[in-house]
Amino acid sequence: MTSTTKHETQIVSDPDVPIVRIIREFDAPPAKVYRAHTDPELVAQWMGPDSTQTRIDQWDCRTGGSWRYTAIHEGQEYGFYGSFHELRPDELIVQTFTFEGMPDGVALEKLVLEDIGGGRTRLTATSLVDSFEGRDGFVASGMDVGVNEGYAKLDELLARG
Amino acid sequence: MTSTTKHETQIVSDPDVPIVRIIREFDAPPAKVYRAHTDPELVAQWMGPDSTQTRIDQWDCRTGGSWRYTAIHEGQEYGFYGSFHELRPDELIVQTFTFEGMPDGVALEKLVLEDIGGGRTRLTATSLVDSFEGRDGFVASGMDVGVNEGYAKLDELLARG
Repeated sequence: MTSTTKHETQIVSDPDVPIVRIIREFDAPPAKVYRAHTDPELVAQWMGPDSTQTRIDQWDCRTGGSWRYTAIHEGQEYGFYGSFHELRPDELIVQTFTFEGMPDGVALEKLVLEDIGGGRTRLTATSLVDSFEGRDGFVASGMDVGVNEGYAKLDELLARG
Repeated sequence: MTSTTKHETQIVSDPDVPIVRIIREFDAPPAKVYRAHTDPELVAQWMGPDSTQTRIDQWDCRTGGSWRYTAIHEGQEYGFYGSFHELRPDELIVQTFTFEGMPDGVALEKLVLEDIGGGRTRLTATSLVDSFEGRDGFVASGMDVGVNEGYAKLDELLARG
């Protein structure tokens, strides 16, 4: 069993624009954190809350590709899909994101990875939507549980290999 | 030469969120306006200002597909690219949009077509970006010329067939 440093996750609602920003450090270099976000077998291992399994249904992880996965929670299935607008290896992922239960809602998501030395990475994930109501509803939905539990699993995955 | 009704184009900067909204009516039903936005041979005929030619470089117009075109103005080439997040025939196109000259800028664009009766359509196109500065710079860039001249060409194209 590998012990991992406990990192705090900041989840910040921007006061001026309908963006939520997630900031988190990881004890691994950008290339490893990037691979954990782009390799579907790795993504399925850590993403989402502990109570949920992730099944990757489609994953064409390149600029101009698209993705689809199903989150399975207590036997219920929830579908999510989007496009990969741009991939810059070890640096940037820009993608769209829709939950099938709210088909008119679309988020534009940007993941930025920064090398902060010592084999560590600072991740900044922003999610932009078209209204403050939508953003605030998303933040109030309990998404912090999925983010925190997911990143704890990602810490362990990064520590293993 | 077919005569077409002159329609006003409204270009509105949202006061609350970094969105610009374009509203325009067309003398054609939604299915025809939709086809003029999704068939690459038609898109190339009307999009952009009169002084610019459009070359479609790649056009995979389906949910999860992507696109790329080049605008040619006085011998200079300007590249644009993005993903098709969702297509709902005759109703909705959601896509991302980047100008290669500003590779970190990404807009999330939503085109909504409404049947307003009498064989006419109301088009509402919204473009969402991550800052008011970016939105206001886009609006001040002269984009209204391209929008107005493009839609005048689209009026003519719709009247022809």
